[in-house]
Amino acid sequence: MASGEDRLIATYFKPLATAPGALGLTDDAASYAPPDGHDLVLTTDAIVSGIHFLPDDPAETVARKALRVNLSDLAAKGAYPAGCLLTIAIPDGVGAQWLQSFASGLQSDCDLFSCALYGGDTVGTTGPLWVSVTAFGILPRGTMVKRAGAKPGDIVVVTGTIGDAALGLRLLQDPDHIERWSLGEEEAAHLAGRYRVPQPRTAIADAVRAQASAAMDVSDGLAGDLTKMCEVSGVSARIELSRLPLSSAAANALAAEPALIEKIMTGGDDYEILAAVPRERLGAFVDQANAVSIAVTAIGEIVDGDGPPQLIARGGEQLTFARGSFSHF
Amino acid sequence: MASGEDRLIATYFKPLATAPGALGLTDDAASYAPPDGHDLVLTTDAIVSGIHFLPDDPAETVARKALRVNLSDLAAKGAYPAGCLLTIAIPDGVGAQWLQSFASGLQSDCDLFSCALYGGDTVGTTGPLWVSVTAFGILPRGTMVKRAGAKPGDIVVVTGTIGDAALGLRLLQDPDHIERWSLGEEEAAHLAGRYRVPQPRTAIADAVRAQASAAMDVSDGLAGDLTKMCEVSGVSARIELSRLPLSSAAANALAAEPALIEKIMTGGDDYEILAAVPRERLGAFVDQANAVSIAVTAIGEIVDGDGPPQLIARGGEQLTFARGSFSHF
Repeated sequence: MASGEDRLIATYFKPLATAPGALGLTDDAASYAPPDGHDLVLTTDAIVSGIHFLPDDPAETVARKALRVNLSDLAAKGAYPAGCLLTIAIPDGVGAQWLQSFASGLQSDCDLFSCALYGGDTVGTTGPLWVSVTAFGILPRGTMVKRAGAKPGDIVVVTGTIGDAALGLRLLQDPDHIERWSLGEEEAAHLAGRYRVPQPRTAIADAVRAQASAAMDVSDGLAGDLTKMCEVSGVSARIELSRLPLSSAAANALAAEPALIEKIMTGGDDYEILAAVPRERLGAFVDQANAVSIAVTAIGEIVDGDGPPQLIARGGEQLTFARGSFSHF
Repeated sequence: MASGEDRLIATYFKPLATAPGALGLTDDAASYAPPDGHDLVLTTDAIVSGIHFLPDDPAETVARKALRVNLSDLAAKGAYPAGCLLTIAIPDGVGAQWLQSFASGLQSDCDLFSCALYGGDTVGTTGPLWVSVTAFGILPRGTMVKRAGAKPGDIVVVTGTIGDAALGLRLLQDPDHIERWSLGEEEAAHLAGRYRVPQPRTAIADAVRAQASAAMDVSDGLAGDLTKMCEVSGVSARIELSRLPLSSAAANALAAEPALIEKIMTGGDDYEILAAVPRERLGAFVDQANAVSIAVTAIGEIVDGDGPPQLIARGGEQLTFARGSFSHF
């Protein structure tokens, strides 16, 4: 007498519900016992086919992206993942093979990030496939790092490299860019991979909590996200674009087409951590990040003021972009 | 430089984020400080236009239904609501008035059920509108009531009345049934209202935790949901359909069309609590429920066995339904 939905959950998602409190997804809800003296950090983000991922992206990367964009938020707040809940809307025609691959991608990331599945829902839809994830993490009580709190004199740092995913999306939409940007095969694959499977900087959570005045993840483009941090902190910033960490692929593309600096700075989907770190703590922050194999780069500093961040190009001129921040909506 | 999504959140949803840890929905994530010695109970359910609600349902009832179906799960587990996160996918053409009404409905229920909004996401979609909610509640550590645990001899009880929502949906789809079932205007409105705005039995959480061996909410139809409880508990049940609590509207409809018993028992969307209560605790359970103005009715008992529950009609014959449980998928 099990319904189609029950069978689907039992087949594909129950193996992911490894926490005892998840009850194998056979109950109305799950229980989670937070360690005493800790806060939960909660976030939710959805991805929709054709908007946040490409309709022909592999099922396995769709699942991983859906989870990872949420884990990126937790890392930016200084929290470690504890668990997640996932809802997927499945159009007619999506078959067992797609679902198996989706569940398999999700399982590998739940394992990798120690983030058990605590619940979910599967629904049908006449529209595009979508996935909504709620993730929760934990940290010692009262220690969540906010967007607000950046202070004049703080150094602006970012993890990893910026712009790869936006360039990767462009490549996937129009492969002619591979030649136009003089990219090798590996470089093209690197950019596409950065769009499809972001790398949440989970391991940097301790360093963020210990050292940063303010932090957020870069999801809508560095220019717009830094602007948000500045606005809510009541400050401005001065960024040297020559110090921007770029992958070799992005650097090659930028050399071939200098106007790409706008896409790199505003394209979004980076899922790197942007933090404001007091100058005297910068060394400790870099050491802690490097100890967990995460590259961090100082790209400028927080300054007094209430205007948008100044973005200074190599020649000393200030750039402004028509489109400060990417919004999916 | 705020994006369309940021403006939408600030306009419609920020007023609902009343908890300090929600940071006015201006951060990547929210923090929640669970009371020491308590567990979280976590659940997620999505509703899709045209599947779980009607495309012309009022925005305000869509919001309330999206939240309430989740609160119903928390109540069934013995938990009180603590907070929620909400993602909404908005097709082109959904305007400010609809969103204002949606947010207003959500706010009134967040207030009513002391369930603050801790986060959310808004996305566009080329498909039908949908809403995904994750709700979390709390209860003393280790006290979550499960579906498993029903024992032979336990009394099977349900809150409220059964079948209203399924009949309400039928009426909304085909108003001719109002006359066919000899319903007054108020009765018809009652049934439609029960479909659009379920009544989560939040106040019964203490009684469930204190007295029930097993509990779940009735979302997919009493026949199928009781079957699930029996299967996971390794028991069967014997239900007297003559004792089924029916609203006057449902009773009138059933009198006019006796075959409706199948829809009443399998139609779903009841969002009442189904519990197995040891016989010696039944009095205490009823007293506790009545003290918070929730009607509970004993409809049968848990028995040894592993077959589906026996559903005994007034004349003593056993009914079986082709379709045990409603599945949206």
